[in-house]
Amino acid sequence: MKIKKIQRSDCEINLALETFGDMWSLLIVRDIVYYGKKTYGEFLESKEGIATNILANRLAHLEQKGILVKNPCKEDKRKEIYTLTERGLGLIAVLLEIARWSVQHDPACTASHAWLDVLSGDKEEIDKKVRSLVQNGGSIFVGDGRLV
Amino acid sequence: MKIKKIQRSDCEINLALETFGDMWSLLIVRDIVYYGKKTYGEFLESKEGIATNILANRLAHLEQKGILVKNPCKEDKRKEIYTLTERGLGLIAVLLEIARWSVQHDPACTASHAWLDVLSGDKEEIDKKVRSLVQNGGSIFVGDGRLV
Repeated sequence: MKIKKIQRSDCEINLALETFGDMWSLLIVRDIVYYGKKTYGEFLESKEGIATNILANRLAHLEQKGILVKNPCKEDKRKEIYTLTERGLGLIAVLLEIARWSVQHDPACTASHAWLDVLSGDKEEIDKKVRSLVQNGGSIFVGDGRLV
Repeated sequence: MKIKKIQRSDCEINLALETFGDMWSLLIVRDIVYYGKKTYGEFLESKEGIATNILANRLAHLEQKGILVKNPCKEDKRKEIYTLTERGLGLIAVLLEIARWSVQHDPACTASHAWLDVLSGDKEEIDKKVRSLVQNGGSIFVGDGRLV
């Protein structure tokens, strides 16, 4: 997908969709927030099977839009790690609202009871908790799919 | 954009994005919720300039996914009107969360003070109010951009 340089309109919904409203961008944000992924290689492994060129394009787009920031990994300078900016952390509330919609309206959704409990709690509170978790390098789920 | 028949994964975020996560679907939902649009002709006039083939494709996709339902217009049987299903009304909360992100994080956003006030109020309450408004054929904004 080409990155459009000209915005279609200044409507707030359109502006947001031009930033993250494609089929892949929010999955990259999900990978960070849900699973703590940080590198190109980790994003590439996600089960949706993103193609290498689309992943590279989407990472560049999200960097350019100020959602992600890329830095050399402290432990291994040859590696680059992606983290969410303040603007990117703001997407956690959007992601959680999408999750709520899905568990309520998609019969194919297989969320665990523990996660459903979290999602049905106070919205502001959960958003704050998850944000703090992610800011400190954590994520909602651990390796085997259990909640942190 | 081709409608994919095979789902990429059963992750709740992916399922949702496969339903409405393209560059246009949520703009059609916005047109209904924000401006009370109901017909193909009205959606086509939106300032983002959607192409006729993409609009037709997206409307069919949203109908197939149970977000929209198409019925003959009561006043003029030759016309068809689109309305949100229960599943589609569930997207109001997602739309409002995207609007909140945009007004907070996009300097290009030109939302009115009155609308900002509404968006910063109690989330559940606003969601309920807008839902009831839309269910009764209304919309958030009236013709000249003022809040209802």
